[in-house]
Amino acid sequence: MNERNDYHMDPETFRRRGREVVDWIADYMERIETFPVRSNVAPGEIRARLPAEPPETGEPFEAVLRDLDEIILPGITHWQSPNFFAYWPANSSGPAVLGELLSAGLAVQGMSWETSPACTELEIHVLDWMLDMLGLPERFHSSSAGGGVIQDTASSATLCALLAARERATDFVTDRKGCDRSLVAYGSTQAHSSVEKAVRIAGLGSEQLRLIDVDDQYAMDASALERGIETDLDAGLTPCFVTATVGTTSSGAIDPVRAIGEIAKRHRVWLHVDAAMSGTAAICPEFRSVHDGVELADSYCVNPHKWMFTNFDCDLFYVADRATLVRTLSVLPEYLRNRATESGVVIDYRDWHIPLGRRFRALKLWLVIRHYGIEGLRHHVRRHVELARMFTGWVEADRDFELAAPVPLNLVCFRHRGGDTINQAIIDRVNDSGKLFLTHTRLGDWFVLRLAIGQTHTEQRHVQAAWDAIRAAAAEVASE
Amino acid sequence: MNERNDYHMDPETFRRRGREVVDWIADYMERIETFPVRSNVAPGEIRARLPAEPPETGEPFEAVLRDLDEIILPGITHWQSPNFFAYWPANSSGPAVLGELLSAGLAVQGMSWETSPACTELEIHVLDWMLDMLGLPERFHSSSAGGGVIQDTASSATLCALLAARERATDFVTDRKGCDRSLVAYGSTQAHSSVEKAVRIAGLGSEQLRLIDVDDQYAMDASALERGIETDLDAGLTPCFVTATVGTTSSGAIDPVRAIGEIAKRHRVWLHVDAAMSGTAAICPEFRSVHDGVELADSYCVNPHKWMFTNFDCDLFYVADRATLVRTLSVLPEYLRNRATESGVVIDYRDWHIPLGRRFRALKLWLVIRHYGIEGLRHHVRRHVELARMFTGWVEADRDFELAAPVPLNLVCFRHRGGDTINQAIIDRVNDSGKLFLTHTRLGDWFVLRLAIGQTHTEQRHVQAAWDAIRAAAAEVASE
Repeated sequence: MNERNDYHMDPETFRRRGREVVDWIADYMERIETFPVRSNVAPGEIRARLPAEPPETGEPFEAVLRDLDEIILPGITHWQSPNFFAYWPANSSGPAVLGELLSAGLAVQGMSWETSPACTELEIHVLDWMLDMLGLPERFHSSSAGGGVIQDTASSATLCALLAARERATDFVTDRKGCDRSLVAYGSTQAHSSVEKAVRIAGLGSEQLRLIDVDDQYAMDASALERGIETDLDAGLTPCFVTATVGTTSSGAIDPVRAIGEIAKRHRVWLHVDAAMSGTAAICPEFRSVHDGVELADSYCVNPHKWMFTNFDCDLFYVADRATLVRTLSVLPEYLRNRATESGVVIDYRDWHIPLGRRFRALKLWLVIRHYGIEGLRHHVRRHVELARMFTGWVEADRDFELAAPVPLNLVCFRHRGGDTINQAIIDRVNDSGKLFLTHTRLGDWFVLRLAIGQTHTEQRHVQAAWDAIRAAAAEVASE
Repeated sequence: MNERNDYHMDPETFRRRGREVVDWIADYMERIETFPVRSNVAPGEIRARLPAEPPETGEPFEAVLRDLDEIILPGITHWQSPNFFAYWPANSSGPAVLGELLSAGLAVQGMSWETSPACTELEIHVLDWMLDMLGLPERFHSSSAGGGVIQDTASSATLCALLAARERATDFVTDRKGCDRSLVAYGSTQAHSSVEKAVRIAGLGSEQLRLIDVDDQYAMDASALERGIETDLDAGLTPCFVTATVGTTSSGAIDPVRAIGEIAKRHRVWLHVDAAMSGTAAICPEFRSVHDGVELADSYCVNPHKWMFTNFDCDLFYVADRATLVRTLSVLPEYLRNRATESGVVIDYRDWHIPLGRRFRALKLWLVIRHYGIEGLRHHVRRHVELARMFTGWVEADRDFELAAPVPLNLVCFRHRGGDTINQAIIDRVNDSGKLFLTHTRLGDWFVLRLAIGQTHTEQRHVQAAWDAIRAAAAEVASE
């Protein structure tokens, strides 16, 4: 039964239940290392425990908290575990969670400036802060012709960049008349899968995406890009977009942004820099070189929801020419018109991305920056890189293992020298153990293990334990 | 300073600060009626109060809560106020906020089944529940060839529907080769602006969107749709997509879904039903007719984040043929491969929408349904419709005002008989007063006031006070 006969949860009950949920999360933080990192349930196992029918009448909140423990937790793969080394970090933190809570509590829409001025203005402000923090160029600053916006993910940012590039290349004829199969886009063979997804969504067609070769460090071969562009121009096609990646998902490789940018500029191709994985490193002066050449970019994105202790979703997307982006995505039906918009002096973020509605996501980023300060964020980025280097040293010193790619920052790609079958057996064994979770990729012809170091509470002991478990698994596999 | 020298917020501090934030939100709920509903700050006013530089070192949490009150709140337009009648409802609730908090606390990724099986399975399950609750067809059930997914917004759902339609119409040739300006899409002149946005994003071109005339109730004229399709076929074009709207944003009109569906079927055109605004009404048997003909739809969406007490973002998107949707949006780079995906028995939701990463959004919807039960949700939907009918009666009985459109559910469109200038003056006056917030639209040649009733705590006294304020403003305007 509900507390009041109008069914709503009144503020006093919210206070009580809210504290219980906060305590549940704090308890979860404290016991997170006791769970298997990767859930070991079978497909359908969670659903089988849920009632087939929705409840006719309300249930007590206690039942929800009980089901969280009994039904949901066994089906959770613990991304916040310090023993999570899979995919990429998605590190969260106390201040970020509380920022998300505040955003949910205010529950405002930020689609237009008028629909909550603070939602828009804090976002502009914090995105300008981030330019300072990451040493990004002035052309992305809100006081220039550019600016930044929070997107859900780098996938969406890439799509928006491609759409703006498409329209710039065709002087907005595509926007009116549609694509005509003449536009070409470029990324390296190691570019994120979202580039292909964007090219397909935007109507260019996957065959109009050129995957450019990489060098022996898995970074784009800029001369191959130039040759590709020239071949397409000779064929009467219109090169419109290239992505350079700062930290590829597969191996952490950093494309030569400056060289790519110069080529892009020469051919009037839109350069998007996808720094989702590794841009955060630039908060440390000693890693700022990852942004070398970014001043040549038309757009750029970085994900505080990966490596800056800010809850997903929080992708920061910057453009040098906001007018082109806004014109590409702008819609203004009568029911959204208002005095502030008509005045032309405000930013209406609905025209900066795909959705119309938007949450107050700047709050969590603001709380994270204020809680840690630049000093605290630098401390942890440095520590993660240091741990990755330590692990790299162990791999290099072991005669059974070898590095599979350079380790510029916090992602280590390595393999057992015994071949793909052994590496697959090692990864299955360690992941099935529940002690840690890591994932794989393919580099060249090889099945490669990836160890991504960046979870909030990962310390040396966790990395050491991971290495011990991997070596033990290798020994067991070898002895079978 | 931070509590520990590693800068992180430890679980004990999170417990304490979390309670403070819960209390802040409960206090906010209690005092929400004391704020001006629409923020009255000037552009730039909030930013001017924020420090120009990000902090070098961490700040105490107290400073954040203080700034929330002093800097952020004046810039908030209070969507959760019971006196908010603007745009559309975005009603939140205690259980939804706590669901969002739990999601932030677990901070898992739901992109693949393996990345947190419970995240995927709870979502499938709750979306199946919702089919029962809204009387939606079996073809959208996960046990059929279809299924549902949570998207951020109806804009994204519309885009995904259009993309799948584009590929079905061209047998996936567009996906490979790109758009060729032959595809045509349809919606009424009253369809949501996101339809035009989607048509432009997907590369069809805005000129390939046909805006079909509406009848005197602002619902699509189905015979005009059929004539439009036939004209395009005669011109050698390929009609691929039509949107029918259940509750237009402008006036709440309900398109004749069955008639549109029969035409769409005859011409092999994808029918998407956009019930973002009004689909929730179908939880009450007496309003279920809004879904008449939905069994003819290829896709459908409804927004619990509008009218079902579930925090934004939570758009439910269903398709009858999930294979076409998944093939349209699927990417599978090596680094996302895993045993569960290869087995083919699980759903990987990353292939159901634009982004790759995804939050555990099913939690908040699950908490809302369990807290209210079907009974509680019905109670409030009925109450909102009843209040809209009451307001409608007042308008009809007043000699100075008139209805501007039928009122099928909870949105009342009305106007002062004195003309556009007077109506604009009335809306400016009431909104500037801070006592309530309502917005406008245009219907035919008229500037029309919209009163959307659906906020969580809106009761009869708020609707009565709104009417009193509107009439008082009209009297003041007339006397000037």
